[in-house]
Amino acid sequence: MSEIRQGRVEEITSHSNPRIKSIRALAMKKARDRDGLFIAEGLKLSTDALAAGWEITTLVHPKRALEDDNLRGRIEPLSATIRARGGDILTVPDKLMVALTKRDNPQVVLSVIRQKETATTDVPSGNETWLCLEKVRDPGNLGTCFRTAEALGIAQVLLVGDTTDPFALETVRATMGAFFHVPFARLSNEQLTQLAKGFRTNGGNVTGAHLEGSEDHRALDYSVGPQLLVMGNEQAGLTSEASAACDRLARIPMAGEADSLNLAVATGILTFAARNHAL
Amino acid sequence: MSEIRQGRVEEITSHSNPRIKSIRALAMKKARDRDGLFIAEGLKLSTDALAAGWEITTLVHPKRALEDDNLRGRIEPLSATIRARGGDILTVPDKLMVALTKRDNPQVVLSVIRQKETATTDVPSGNETWLCLEKVRDPGNLGTCFRTAEALGIAQVLLVGDTTDPFALETVRATMGAFFHVPFARLSNEQLTQLAKGFRTNGGNVTGAHLEGSEDHRALDYSVGPQLLVMGNEQAGLTSEASAACDRLARIPMAGEADSLNLAVATGILTFAARNHAL
Repeated sequence: MSEIRQGRVEEITSHSNPRIKSIRALAMKKARDRDGLFIAEGLKLSTDALAAGWEITTLVHPKRALEDDNLRGRIEPLSATIRARGGDILTVPDKLMVALTKRDNPQVVLSVIRQKETATTDVPSGNETWLCLEKVRDPGNLGTCFRTAEALGIAQVLLVGDTTDPFALETVRATMGAFFHVPFARLSNEQLTQLAKGFRTNGGNVTGAHLEGSEDHRALDYSVGPQLLVMGNEQAGLTSEASAACDRLARIPMAGEADSLNLAVATGILTFAARNHAL
Repeated sequence: MSEIRQGRVEEITSHSNPRIKSIRALAMKKARDRDGLFIAEGLKLSTDALAAGWEITTLVHPKRALEDDNLRGRIEPLSATIRARGGDILTVPDKLMVALTKRDNPQVVLSVIRQKETATTDVPSGNETWLCLEKVRDPGNLGTCFRTAEALGIAQVLLVGDTTDPFALETVRATMGAFFHVPFARLSNEQLTQLAKGFRTNGGNVTGAHLEGSEDHRALDYSVGPQLLVMGNEQAGLTSEASAACDRLARIPMAGEADSLNLAVATGILTFAARNHAL
């Protein structure tokens, strides 16, 4: 086993420092993709990431935070673990923290984390429920769906097709930490079709949410075999390719003038129904 | 009956025109409160507002939009109705539309609408369901709750205590038009307590969402008498005052590490359960 280099503590004061510039660049998808890194703000998200085994390459905090006993008591154990695993700690002036986070009241720490996708495509044999989200556009919706999935016992989240970046700051923030606990991966539509076959072979169902679905979602049984739930995009719903991968299309009954529910709300209602037997 | 002045059409080209400045000011709550006006963007929201009887005092659109046959066909009937009811039409250059909406790709129209609150506090005698939202902070959550309420047949939305402004652009946008269809009003906590008594007197229930609620929300009956659902704030849940107004506190069962669901998602799951018998 090779020895891990202990991370360093470095004080940085200049906005033009190359490490600061590369962290700021992670606000853009292009830089996140190139570097394979992303950002999570705050003690809770950083602690969740570390506890769940994600690699924090850099932790940034205002130098002044260590003057506050309470904050020091929370930052130091985090820093120690990150350094022991080879990550670096950057201390910065308050105004540089504001610039890094583009917020007037920045969170007390910011973590740079290595991207990974941890979901498997091995079809489960038991009664796990997996959630597929096709072409989701809105980072807040995507993050909220992760949060709901984790809270209701979804085993994996799969992002199908051209989806908003799961590693965007706003997405990670909206997950409230669930991002680090639910395995996820990105799939093509062809992979979804294959996966759906596997779920059926193993005695389960593939249920798509569809505004014109022929079945009331309440009438469906989700308790036998592995269950795959498939949600479509905010504007257009499921593509015909994703619909074709499903063996049943479920409709949430509605009243009123509305033609649809918000995607995260619809995902919540359907996920609750699908996990009802296990909650 | 006094005659309504027919609205005027005016072409404006200057950013410093006082009417333009007063519309731009409506981005701020202070100006919305002072003028009793708010903004809705887009043909759909403007059409919904007009159809539901809201007063559009001013409709703004780029002059060039009338050169497009399709857009002209959609704008002209809207303009005609607004003018007949005394509202004015402002045509502006494209760049002024961009400045007004602070968007690179602005919606094709922007409406200035007179604020009103239309909910009643007369307790219903039948099986209506009303939704109370206490101290909601996030405009997107509030708007999404309106959208869900309308889609699932909630008769009224009541905003309790110090809530984010329902007339904010982001809130109205997130309702997807439901804002104009669901009667709502703002209440104090004292008024909520009174209202809750009325619901019980009329044979109904007041159900609060609570992370430590003693009852699984699925075990509750919502089908007898008027039903009041009460949801709390994103961070802190219900205040003790609002909890005390409830005769039952419902918990959404969860799995995983999460300590809560997103407010709009929790509202969706509970509202669906409460309206289940009628959907």
